[in-house]
Amino acid sequence: MQPTSTKLITRWAGAEPTKVEDELVVEEPLEIRIGQQSLIVVMRTPGHDFELAAGFLYTESLITRSDDIEIIAYCDEEATETQDGSLASYQNIVNVQLTEELDLDAQSGWQRNFHANASCGLCGKMTIESVRQQVPPLNSRFSMNQAVLYQLNDRLRAAQSVFERTGGLHAAGLFSETGELLIVREDIGRHNAVDKVIGQALLADMVPLERHILMVSGRASFEIVQKALFARIPVIVAVSAASTLAVDLAAEGNLTLIGFMRGQRMAVYTCPERIFCEA
Amino acid sequence: MQPTSTKLITRWAGAEPTKVEDELVVEEPLEIRIGQQSLIVVMRTPGHDFELAAGFLYTESLITRSDDIEIIAYCDEEATETQDGSLASYQNIVNVQLTEELDLDAQSGWQRNFHANASCGLCGKMTIESVRQQVPPLNSRFSMNQAVLYQLNDRLRAAQSVFERTGGLHAAGLFSETGELLIVREDIGRHNAVDKVIGQALLADMVPLERHILMVSGRASFEIVQKALFARIPVIVAVSAASTLAVDLAAEGNLTLIGFMRGQRMAVYTCPERIFCEA
Repeated sequence: MQPTSTKLITRWAGAEPTKVEDELVVEEPLEIRIGQQSLIVVMRTPGHDFELAAGFLYTESLITRSDDIEIIAYCDEEATETQDGSLASYQNIVNVQLTEELDLDAQSGWQRNFHANASCGLCGKMTIESVRQQVPPLNSRFSMNQAVLYQLNDRLRAAQSVFERTGGLHAAGLFSETGELLIVREDIGRHNAVDKVIGQALLADMVPLERHILMVSGRASFEIVQKALFARIPVIVAVSAASTLAVDLAAEGNLTLIGFMRGQRMAVYTCPERIFCEA
Repeated sequence: MQPTSTKLITRWAGAEPTKVEDELVVEEPLEIRIGQQSLIVVMRTPGHDFELAAGFLYTESLITRSDDIEIIAYCDEEATETQDGSLASYQNIVNVQLTEELDLDAQSGWQRNFHANASCGLCGKMTIESVRQQVPPLNSRFSMNQAVLYQLNDRLRAAQSVFERTGGLHAAGLFSETGELLIVREDIGRHNAVDKVIGQALLADMVPLERHILMVSGRASFEIVQKALFARIPVIVAVSAASTLAVDLAAEGNLTLIGFMRGQRMAVYTCPERIFCEA
């Protein structure tokens, strides 16, 4: 698997949309097993997977030296591909065979206080099959003026100015279809900021958010799209890049995913038909 | 709890160190419970914790509407503070009482395929007590010239130029004490990039890394410091901000934590005595 992948996107500059090939960073789940037992799924960029597994086990105290590992290998026999060929590829499962003694220790250790695992808001999934939750695609006919989208970044920035001095926070904002900022939350974790926004909307009985826009200050990854789909948000705007899996999930869910929103420019990865330009 | 906190740091500009007060974003664990049973710990910035809990349960399919929640409250009776008063504060535990029917569903649901949970490399911890692993402090006498540190950013950048075109990757680099780049890895997850670097070092029998520097392209959070301490790395350099908990853990571990490394400037959060300036 390659660390990058090419997709056809719509790049807007001012009022001009253009179809272009864009290079995206690949995001894929990696299931780490010990002695064929599932330990954790991490979302990662393919490449150096054995090192990732070894480093993870080491920094989680399950091993203390390289000799603790007998074999690290992909699970070839598990090549049960999904329809799009991505999720259950055998290159997404790594099995680590530890020394016999350690294998027992590790298993009791993780069953005691380790259970399952996740990273970056991909919560507690032990197997690749459990990563993708079932969410029906959006059938929202919502569409919006590109001029409204260009205003969102400045509005989100202005609202987060209190915290900007620390340089360490992600922001998520929920906007109305006219570009009014309804909720803004900041957090050291991007997915937490999104959960706080959606949680506030839920508690205020605003869900489903079928005519709203979610903006995030950083990148758009798989779990951000999944969270938006749950709340039925039809448009996500990210300041930075989107990953391949985020784009795939957005396409399946009929969600408009926009990245690199800067000034009067943006990259529309999916469902560009929701955006119109009023002359 | 406030979302920011002030610490005394050493700011270097060129060859000039100055002690200044700096404002850092607060990072603290939040344990979410359902019916007093631990579900997950997320590392978050304090504030809007009930919304975070509600949004998390919603986007993880454990609830579908606000009426599913009877009560959300901090666990006041659990105010068992640690020595530094941070980790087990009662404001770090939120209990959600669901409607009776849903409570049972939720419990069987998460026990089936949810188990535990985490975010951003904080792996699979269900309770706050289990977040901090026991790592002895470093006693390395390693010290380094500030001029070497200023070179690292450009070297890491140059090595990651292949992926820079996607704009979506974090990088981690392991440097020798003379500033030689030994290992560089990129990943959509910051903690994965660090695990790949440390995993490679482990597999190459280079650990403990007592005379090495770890550089990360983004922020320095708690789990990056914890991973470095495991590998016995005495110096971490981050391009962006450090969180309060990262600084606290680095101070306890006697690790030199540096942030905002840009050009000939940097912010030294802990153990500044490891850095010297050769006239």
